[in-house]
Amino acid sequence: MNFTIQNVLIPIEDDYATVDVQIKDGKIAAISSNLDVIGAVIDGKNKLLLPGFVNAHTHSSEMWQRGIMSIYPLELWLAELYDFAPLDTEQVYLSALGTAVETLLSGGTSVVDHLVLIPGKELETITVAVEAYRKVGIRAIIAPLIQDQSLTAGIPSGESDVIHEDYFRSTQATLEIMESAINQFHQPEDGIYIALAPTGIQLCSDALFKGCIELSDKYNLCRHSHLLETKAQEKLAKEKYGCTAVEHLHEIGYLNYRTSLAHCVHLTDSDINILAQTQSTVVHNPLSNLRLGSGIAPILKYRQVGVNVSFGCDGASSNDSQDLLEAIKIGSILHNVTDLDYQHWITPRESIEMASLGGAKGLNLGEEIGSLTVGKKADLVMYDLTSLSLLPRTDPVGLLVLGRPTNVVDSVWVNGKLIVGNGNVKNIDVDSLRQELFKHSQWQTKRKSKTVKEIETHYRGVMEL
Amino acid sequence: MNFTIQNVLIPIEDDYATVDVQIKDGKIAAISSNLDVIGAVIDGKNKLLLPGFVNAHTHSSEMWQRGIMSIYPLELWLAELYDFAPLDTEQVYLSALGTAVETLLSGGTSVVDHLVLIPGKELETITVAVEAYRKVGIRAIIAPLIQDQSLTAGIPSGESDVIHEDYFRSTQATLEIMESAINQFHQPEDGIYIALAPTGIQLCSDALFKGCIELSDKYNLCRHSHLLETKAQEKLAKEKYGCTAVEHLHEIGYLNYRTSLAHCVHLTDSDINILAQTQSTVVHNPLSNLRLGSGIAPILKYRQVGVNVSFGCDGASSNDSQDLLEAIKIGSILHNVTDLDYQHWITPRESIEMASLGGAKGLNLGEEIGSLTVGKKADLVMYDLTSLSLLPRTDPVGLLVLGRPTNVVDSVWVNGKLIVGNGNVKNIDVDSLRQELFKHSQWQTKRKSKTVKEIETHYRGVMEL
Repeated sequence: MNFTIQNVLIPIEDDYATVDVQIKDGKIAAISSNLDVIGAVIDGKNKLLLPGFVNAHTHSSEMWQRGIMSIYPLELWLAELYDFAPLDTEQVYLSALGTAVETLLSGGTSVVDHLVLIPGKELETITVAVEAYRKVGIRAIIAPLIQDQSLTAGIPSGESDVIHEDYFRSTQATLEIMESAINQFHQPEDGIYIALAPTGIQLCSDALFKGCIELSDKYNLCRHSHLLETKAQEKLAKEKYGCTAVEHLHEIGYLNYRTSLAHCVHLTDSDINILAQTQSTVVHNPLSNLRLGSGIAPILKYRQVGVNVSFGCDGASSNDSQDLLEAIKIGSILHNVTDLDYQHWITPRESIEMASLGGAKGLNLGEEIGSLTVGKKADLVMYDLTSLSLLPRTDPVGLLVLGRPTNVVDSVWVNGKLIVGNGNVKNIDVDSLRQELFKHSQWQTKRKSKTVKEIETHYRGVMEL
Repeated sequence: MNFTIQNVLIPIEDDYATVDVQIKDGKIAAISSNLDVIGAVIDGKNKLLLPGFVNAHTHSSEMWQRGIMSIYPLELWLAELYDFAPLDTEQVYLSALGTAVETLLSGGTSVVDHLVLIPGKELETITVAVEAYRKVGIRAIIAPLIQDQSLTAGIPSGESDVIHEDYFRSTQATLEIMESAINQFHQPEDGIYIALAPTGIQLCSDALFKGCIELSDKYNLCRHSHLLETKAQEKLAKEKYGCTAVEHLHEIGYLNYRTSLAHCVHLTDSDINILAQTQSTVVHNPLSNLRLGSGIAPILKYRQVGVNVSFGCDGASSNDSQDLLEAIKIGSILHNVTDLDYQHWITPRESIEMASLGGAKGLNLGEEIGSLTVGKKADLVMYDLTSLSLLPRTDPVGLLVLGRPTNVVDSVWVNGKLIVGNGNVKNIDVDSLRQELFKHSQWQTKRKSKTVKEIETHYRGVMEL
């Protein structure tokens, strides 16, 4: 599986260079002009080669509800989502395929799937997701979404004495499922990783967090959670802990260099310093934060104090797509309205570094992937610079990040294996996937969520709406 | 040119219906189920039919600098843009074609081109733009960008006594060019309109505004300007007029139902009421406002007091694309972070109405286009609901607005003429266009703008950076 890409454009310090790139045994063996050919020859003329991006936070099965969710803030949106999410494993398989395909065709080579588990079929859910990602060939971090408190516990109580139903599965049983999943599926050499992923402080006990810490330390795995996505969660943390969520998570030892945290919208300056100090990673999901009205995460501040930041699409029903280039664009330019001084704004080159190396670091893979570096694994994406959306020729990285590139991904390699060639996904038939997605769905008008009706008055009260 | 679309999905009050649509002599003749066939039969199965959207503010020739402009606020960005914009008429022609194609393939049937004129070749510039839009067949409102003050006059003076160079052409000469353009090119029956388009208070004298008012009244034409895009312009208006820009424009009689105003980011509540009262239209350009750090326009407020709002892509070097669906998505969800109460947020159905009927009203064409209404001109777009990006099937309008649709436009008609069929632009060869754009350009790294260097210190001082 050795090959040589010839005459391809790559970004170098403040400029571009036309180079050859040798790939040997799945790794980048050399980058230079006029290299000897090893293996097959790939023509890189009029193409741009970049390290693959990481879709650092998503929930694949939300694909089934994209486009139809009401225009609600997270807490109500989640109630509606769960009312209409009776998934089966076939759907989980298809939406994992769809998530992988859309990620690949927008520059991603890795995906973090904060995977919603079908109750009672937890390991089966993980099994089919793993199967789908293996089939497509994308690098996949499966982070099974776990909790041990029921939905209403995620909304602040305010003045009221709400009693929440017990969660249907015990904390211990959940942790046992996770350990089985690790033993069955964590195979980094095959590009499949398991992460410990308690959903967040809003629905998890300290016992669950601590169990996850133990397992992640025992097996050297990553941790992944939502963190302070909404104002409601900020209030809730105060009610639960009497301190901020970040202070609490730090106290129980959850934050470290293997921890990535989706959203991080409502943090104090002191919280931000804790993230920097613990080397935690922030996963920025700009589209979801806008769609759900969660707020604008203080990404410029994170970068100023040295917190690692990467990009995620978030689940497709709060976005409502899996186009990573869109998340990168909006997640870069959005912050220009939060700070008048343009010298603090994110440049396109910084954006692609956040999306590639930033993503890799958040998965504790910063030494293995995320840059065009000799010795690193060949997770690479080659873009066609003759696409209408990347013309006229100006600054290729600028066009890619700030434009609206469509049909621009020519080739994708993961671990040196070609999984997209000439714009086509190699290992699955995308037309059949489209037919399956069509067959398993129906056009619908807006639905009415029973749970939203039950909780909306309380929500509006406690949020002072 | 009569035809009948059969079995196509259209949105109706809170639901969808499958209908037939008869088009006769360029107009919608009937919409109902089981209509008789007139003319050719078009299969609408698994497709969604919507009124065409309006790309209500752009500058086509900026396409030549998309992707490469520095990460600057408007005032510095503009200085850089003009340093590197030595256009010729061939470039103007090609970028007008490109703008038309990208607009059509993202759901637009009309484009407002706030056209930058080549100095000394003003009418030639308009001639080639008209030629390009006629060629493609899109409905085009050519709004030649005029001013009578030079660039530095657009930055507030602050404490300093800056002397600005005279503008190279007199106000009177500019107005004469405009009247020639009207007489030569304004042909609504052919889908080509001229609008009076003084760039904005930052670079126009009252004499220029008043000349434009007279011409627009004499010929019953639209008026189009930038308005309060940046904080700097807000300051400048205070310096120039001692009141807000809106108060001043209202006083001189510029604002009426034929006036559309791009950006409108920095308005007071009282300004907003003036826009409502004068029936002026706001053109929201969310991507450009983010890219340039201009701010978030108070779109929810505009809608609450009854100001008509439409969407624009703005020029491709502050966006950096002409994908109207992207502008609609971001221009809809962006405002959810400005108002905690989700009951005020824009729904997908409202978004498409803003993009179609809102756009039409802003051009004084609300009675002629902008909705699926019997008797209106057939400016229609048919979307393929079997595209991967619109699957699984949920709510088609939700998917279109909130998703990231790519390759979804199947057919476009303007005035009942098919100009995109089966996803292909009919009247020009897009492959040749790509080749021409490629040939006329070079990949570049960042450039250094001489003018930015000259004005940056003053800009930072006056903006207190």
